[in-house]
Amino acid sequence: MDVAKVALVGFGTIGSGVARLLLEHPERIARQAGRPVRLVRVVDPDLRRARNMTLPGGMLTGDLQSVLADREVAAVVQLIGGLEPERSIMLRVLESGKDVVTANKALLAEHGVELFDRARQLGRSIAFEAAVAGGIPIIAAISECLTANQVESVRGILNGTSNFILSEMGQRGSSYSESVSEAQRRGYAEADPTLDVDGTDAAQKLAILAHLAFGARINWRDIPRTGIDVVELADIRYAAELGYHVKLLATAELGGDGLELHVSPTLVRQGTPLAEVRGAFNAVRVVGDAVGPVFFHGQGAGQMPTASAVVADLIDTVVGRTAITFRTLRLWSAEGGSAVATCDPARVPGRYYLRFRVNDRPGVLAEIAGILGSNQISIASVIQHEASEEGDELVPLVIMTHSAPEGALRTAMQAIDRLPCVHTGSVRMRVRD
Amino acid sequence: MDVAKVALVGFGTIGSGVARLLLEHPERIARQAGRPVRLVRVVDPDLRRARNMTLPGGMLTGDLQSVLADREVAAVVQLIGGLEPERSIMLRVLESGKDVVTANKALLAEHGVELFDRARQLGRSIAFEAAVAGGIPIIAAISECLTANQVESVRGILNGTSNFILSEMGQRGSSYSESVSEAQRRGYAEADPTLDVDGTDAAQKLAILAHLAFGARINWRDIPRTGIDVVELADIRYAAELGYHVKLLATAELGGDGLELHVSPTLVRQGTPLAEVRGAFNAVRVVGDAVGPVFFHGQGAGQMPTASAVVADLIDTVVGRTAITFRTLRLWSAEGGSAVATCDPARVPGRYYLRFRVNDRPGVLAEIAGILGSNQISIASVIQHEASEEGDELVPLVIMTHSAPEGALRTAMQAIDRLPCVHTGSVRMRVRD
Repeated sequence: MDVAKVALVGFGTIGSGVARLLLEHPERIARQAGRPVRLVRVVDPDLRRARNMTLPGGMLTGDLQSVLADREVAAVVQLIGGLEPERSIMLRVLESGKDVVTANKALLAEHGVELFDRARQLGRSIAFEAAVAGGIPIIAAISECLTANQVESVRGILNGTSNFILSEMGQRGSSYSESVSEAQRRGYAEADPTLDVDGTDAAQKLAILAHLAFGARINWRDIPRTGIDVVELADIRYAAELGYHVKLLATAELGGDGLELHVSPTLVRQGTPLAEVRGAFNAVRVVGDAVGPVFFHGQGAGQMPTASAVVADLIDTVVGRTAITFRTLRLWSAEGGSAVATCDPARVPGRYYLRFRVNDRPGVLAEIAGILGSNQISIASVIQHEASEEGDELVPLVIMTHSAPEGALRTAMQAIDRLPCVHTGSVRMRVRD
Repeated sequence: MDVAKVALVGFGTIGSGVARLLLEHPERIARQAGRPVRLVRVVDPDLRRARNMTLPGGMLTGDLQSVLADREVAAVVQLIGGLEPERSIMLRVLESGKDVVTANKALLAEHGVELFDRARQLGRSIAFEAAVAGGIPIIAAISECLTANQVESVRGILNGTSNFILSEMGQRGSSYSESVSEAQRRGYAEADPTLDVDGTDAAQKLAILAHLAFGARINWRDIPRTGIDVVELADIRYAAELGYHVKLLATAELGGDGLELHVSPTLVRQGTPLAEVRGAFNAVRVVGDAVGPVFFHGQGAGQMPTASAVVADLIDTVVGRTAITFRTLRLWSAEGGSAVATCDPARVPGRYYLRFRVNDRPGVLAEIAGILGSNQISIASVIQHEASEEGDELVPLVIMTHSAPEGALRTAMQAIDRLPCVHTGSVRMRVRD
């Protein structure tokens, strides 16, 4: 059968992983695609940088136009980070009549509507399995495998960097900044880890999953998010004492009031699958009304796990499955509105972990408990330890609440933070059983 | 767009779940399929049996031929158990020009080659996601999502009944027979649970997964299998003492000598995802050379989880994804041989848990250890408890070995069982860390 010719734009870490799979295992790919898939061009402006693989002579080029002009190239794998020139390049690739495979979740979260509408106009497709949770086939699971279900909830550990840092703190007792350094040393965190640890990366991925699972059309910036930079080692220890692990959870959950969306450090009960996700792994738990809970766990980043997802998408594109899914689902269209309304976060009930830094004197607990009570928030448990040995007059006070609306919690926290006996640095985290 | 007309053959538990999804959620299905999917006929010889759903008048019929003759019916969901008449009906459905969706793993394990070859000759497809691990999309994962990988191992808890029974024994301390009764009471086990507890069901599913993942062509009867009926409560307790849970594990693992296949009660280290699978759930861990380990967990049986998989397959069939996958992968063909040889089980190295019933007298451990040593099997740990209070002279002796070839273990066990101080009822189980 005809050879399928493909090109790669972006020859960085993931790009060289993709090239390696295509060049080193052609028989494997051909068996799955029903015909040979031949990588014919790799485009990257930097022709000299050393990579951990060598391309055949003449394959690497800086000339994108020559690839766009090659009518025999049917699909392009685009692996450039950032929004520009990635967006413009993707439009040019689509306009040159080629299907696209991408791993760029920021681009989809930002310009998905424009890119998908343009692809549809042109009769082309965009595949993006690698954009969320790396090697875990969660895009296919939601958009092809759980299609008989109304999805009721999606909860994920979508940022491996954050999960690694929280795991280090929990397992080794390292501080937050020590754990960030260790993540950088191992290549799990960038020199500037902001987008990973502040919840941006997870919110962008959650926006994509919420669109697939619920038809929600949301700007990722509108997803309430808290990063792990607020989590202290003390919180991880108190959580463990209460029977929980702290995880950066991305949540999309359908309730009577609409869709609840947020990204935040969350206490997850020990022994449940999400709580036990360690290191740089990702995991997603999807609940469907027919299938019940389904749980997926795997490597969410890294060269070869991400390349695995990219090449699976490329095979899907070459055999024609992607075109069908893309045509049928009509994702991100300027014509369609959101299929579901997001709910008012203030009305969403939940259990909370609270930590206050208070003066070590009688009556403090009564004052705080009084404010919680007057906001109809009842207390499930309290941990109060002795002051530390250094003669510090501030002690931590940890309170686990029963379920209460987020709005009531916020009001109570503001009032508590105004108490003279309560110092700055209060912490509030959701609890999931 | 055109309505896709479909029919259902077999109106039992799963069949009524499928009918419910199609009839109660037409808008959901139409959105995913890109056009309405209309259930037009349900065929079952028993027109009077009460079901937990009511079909529109005239939809239920005993007349299969009228459905086969209806040229507007494009796909048939076949949900009859057993091998005949299911096999003949499937051939007739294919020959009438319709695609098939099935959940019958026994039929595929037994007659897959004939049925798939006939479907290919006729230009039709057979979808079977529901045949293995119910609601977990493991068929799609292996045959569509992990296609860039050489799969290196597949380990699964594929029989929910066995897992429920082992969980009951472990968590409640119930005996094997009490746990079987509880599984029957809850509807997890049939009146005659033999095919679940003796490993047959898991071996049939493993044969299907091994074919998808490795191209292995194996008769499920040739897969070495031990059921959970050999597991005693004592073994579960000793395993827990050593840091393990006992699971009925179905394993297909590629090694230097070929593919290792077996179904057997196995000690799985506590805290690993497979070890923590509770109740009637299923789980599968797949390792690919690019993606690394990916873990899937969900409900492996039951009306709606299975119906979820069946209807997803039906949607895939209606939109055309199934036809592509079916055409490309060329599963189960009389023309192809096995893509991989199975290895000699005797040469496969592994760690083992051994339990002997021995006389409570000095020198017994030395005799047993001597035989193990002379077979080059070294001991990792030993548990020897006091004789029970009833004045029983037999005591259990539990030994955990380091890694040794299965053949050496078998030889040593035979020699040990011939010792006068060792009584009948020795137990041997694999250990997975």
